[in-house]
Amino acid sequence: MKKIVALALSSSFALASAASEGIPTDVTEAAEELLRAGMTDRVGFQVVEDLTTEVGPRLGGSEAEARARVWAEAKLRSLGFENVRTETFSMPYWERAYEYAAIEHPFPQELLVTALGNSVGTPEGGVRGQVVEFETLTDLINAPLDNSLEGKIVFVNEGMVRTQDGSGYGVAVRKRSGAANEGAKRGAIAALIRSVGTDSHRFPHTGGMRYEEGVTKIPTAALSAPDADQLERALNRSPVTVSLDLAVRTLDKVTSGNVIGEIPGQTDEIVVIGGHLDSWDLGTGAVDDGAGIGITTGAAKLIMEHINTTGEKPLRTIRLVYWGSEEVGLLGARAYAQQHKDELGKHVMAAESDFGAGRIWKMDTRFGDDKVELGVDIIRVLDAAGVALGNNQATGGPDVTPLRALGVPVVTLRQNGWDYFDLHHTADDTIDKIDPDDLAQNVAVYAAFTWMAANTPGGFRADPAAVGTE
Amino acid sequence: MKKIVALALSSSFALASAASEGIPTDVTEAAEELLRAGMTDRVGFQVVEDLTTEVGPRLGGSEAEARARVWAEAKLRSLGFENVRTETFSMPYWERAYEYAAIEHPFPQELLVTALGNSVGTPEGGVRGQVVEFETLTDLINAPLDNSLEGKIVFVNEGMVRTQDGSGYGVAVRKRSGAANEGAKRGAIAALIRSVGTDSHRFPHTGGMRYEEGVTKIPTAALSAPDADQLERALNRSPVTVSLDLAVRTLDKVTSGNVIGEIPGQTDEIVVIGGHLDSWDLGTGAVDDGAGIGITTGAAKLIMEHINTTGEKPLRTIRLVYWGSEEVGLLGARAYAQQHKDELGKHVMAAESDFGAGRIWKMDTRFGDDKVELGVDIIRVLDAAGVALGNNQATGGPDVTPLRALGVPVVTLRQNGWDYFDLHHTADDTIDKIDPDDLAQNVAVYAAFTWMAANTPGGFRADPAAVGTE
Repeated sequence: MKKIVALALSSSFALASAASEGIPTDVTEAAEELLRAGMTDRVGFQVVEDLTTEVGPRLGGSEAEARARVWAEAKLRSLGFENVRTETFSMPYWERAYEYAAIEHPFPQELLVTALGNSVGTPEGGVRGQVVEFETLTDLINAPLDNSLEGKIVFVNEGMVRTQDGSGYGVAVRKRSGAANEGAKRGAIAALIRSVGTDSHRFPHTGGMRYEEGVTKIPTAALSAPDADQLERALNRSPVTVSLDLAVRTLDKVTSGNVIGEIPGQTDEIVVIGGHLDSWDLGTGAVDDGAGIGITTGAAKLIMEHINTTGEKPLRTIRLVYWGSEEVGLLGARAYAQQHKDELGKHVMAAESDFGAGRIWKMDTRFGDDKVELGVDIIRVLDAAGVALGNNQATGGPDVTPLRALGVPVVTLRQNGWDYFDLHHTADDTIDKIDPDDLAQNVAVYAAFTWMAANTPGGFRADPAAVGTE
Repeated sequence: MKKIVALALSSSFALASAASEGIPTDVTEAAEELLRAGMTDRVGFQVVEDLTTEVGPRLGGSEAEARARVWAEAKLRSLGFENVRTETFSMPYWERAYEYAAIEHPFPQELLVTALGNSVGTPEGGVRGQVVEFETLTDLINAPLDNSLEGKIVFVNEGMVRTQDGSGYGVAVRKRSGAANEGAKRGAIAALIRSVGTDSHRFPHTGGMRYEEGVTKIPTAALSAPDADQLERALNRSPVTVSLDLAVRTLDKVTSGNVIGEIPGQTDEIVVIGGHLDSWDLGTGAVDDGAGIGITTGAAKLIMEHINTTGEKPLRTIRLVYWGSEEVGLLGARAYAQQHKDELGKHVMAAESDFGAGRIWKMDTRFGDDKVELGVDIIRVLDAAGVALGNNQATGGPDVTPLRALGVPVVTLRQNGWDYFDLHHTADDTIDKIDPDDLAQNVAVYAAFTWMAANTPGGFRADPAAVGTE
């Protein structure tokens, strides 16, 4: 594998030096240098290890997330970043306190569940009811709007398709809110779902849900895949009664925040890269999103070393953002967009890494129509790491959604997510699941990309870009 | 793979009809027929599915194990076995009630643990102490017998080697009792171990432990592998304080039992095959040992069908035994040997399946020295399923240990255990982990073997075997 990468690197040098109209040759050459150096990076992995060990789980709004911010500021300072600070915001808080489910009749046994984020608790002592299974959320949506689920526990057993690009998630995740909302409309007293995930281990996957306006809020939880299978087998044999006991704690207002560090550029323009600092509470948040923190920090650190060695200061400031409280509703992302609304016109590019640590295999862009060729130039460098060019409809990552909506160009450096949803939002999201060499490939690609984004004259918006007026 | 098996089958026919001095040709031919038929068996898998679904976890001595016995009698009767009965025995009872562990300082976070079977609980509110790590149990045993662990929590972080034959377990499992016993001798207030297992998922592995006579009983629990890694990383950075809170419930005397069904033979001699009916409490006991129940039941059922079709009644009674309370100290095995002590001389052969559902790849025997050639004859049939001949020092399986000690010949039909200790004694031991085709190969091999064991004249003890006088 190493040999193939080495060969690819040399052939790319030839390509890159032959072309690049839009991106100056000195910029692509430095990017190639960063790409090569990044391939053996260990700073990124060490950052993930430190965060997941020294903080561990860090639910948005929790005391643990506050400790993560302290950790993050110290880490950014020790690595040499400038203008290190936390930008705080207020938010409502939810946490799980207790969760238990069991088949009561006819095959008494515990089922492993986890409350979905934002779920209400059950009444004291739990609820019990006969289970009504729907194979898919669509089946439930298509069921008559009568009281046929009155007193029942609705169970949406829809599976998820394993894909490299994670596209199976978009379909499967709808049931996370849909089971409770659609169940409640038909009288259900609680909603269970098969976890949104692709593994077959006894890890329920949590994740945020939202109640529809005006619909009764019923408690809702996810079963691990083997427990969903078990409930399905039981239902194939007999009517089944299940008990569910959830307790949650909520607070109206707590503090969260985004942590920021910078590499100052020659102008007041900004390139934003980063990941989200918070995680779900069950695991230590290694793939989601310690990896994104590590990858973008490793990339920025590599650039800092390049600057220190060469004296080549980037045209634009490289801003590393650790968004807070992503999992619980993109709260840090919204706060960032709000708090920086006056300088969004200066934001030349934004990209978040939030899909684990699998190798980057494709780059989608969202550039001005007259700037799409810059994607070709970038790929001439990145293809040495096995990255192909995708489409010009990139999302950029969850936390740059508000920036994208306000006109900031974005890229998605798409990672191999084949195994990502085996771990996503489970207790099993721990650092042993990350391959340091795969993570280093991400560091390499982010470093090379970020250097080009920070140094390509004219930026990536359509001309004439109405800078500052979005 | 199917083609290879078919080819192997035909070549084995040639071998088998050419040879077999000790085992009559009509017997090996019927065994070959059973082997071929077993390869597509689904009865065995269905038995595992029914047991793990309709009963689920079934800890030795529990109400769930009692339900398993009711289930088992009904299942054996419905499959057509004769003399179906439960042979009860009394035993002390232990169960977990509550377990929690956390790093308190300096990196506060929960650790996933499970109490080891027979552990005492902690005092109300738990214990807390500084962790002292030993890389191996041997390191702890070699530490001076002073009070250096006074007030401390000892942590034995020894790993386990993955092997096909499970031999890594024998080494690794010693720490399950050893950590508490050796820790207590040096003043420790609690003992943690890295789970005895080969996976890297957040499943702690439980399992039985025993306190040494005269040593202070301290609470003891296993961390999942990722949690042991986490504690190790924390200890590499700083002294670490951990809290541990375990609650257990015990009863002096409950009832357990062995469930038995038979295929009557022409004589009063007996061939015993079976598995253990109980499981640990965390999973549904699919690989340990629903598989053994399914494999031996499927094999016996296949023989029953053969008898019904051909009218060929076996020389000896085939006795299917579902031992009770194996995990908590081979209690069913001991009760069986005691309750059947007067007929042990009539026990011609015994074999337990208790190592999951991986394919059988080797047969070890423990035959009289002058009968080892019978192993060669048996393998002439079984090699068509990919089974090689091992040594003549078979253990026969945990529940036949007391029989073997009393002179009963045994075989171990050795299964591929490469993945077995990923699941063993965890919540993740569920039926989705069993490949029905692998299980069918086991059924085929057990059916062919059992038929030969039940019909080989003269049996497998050394001549002159002092039948009935052991």
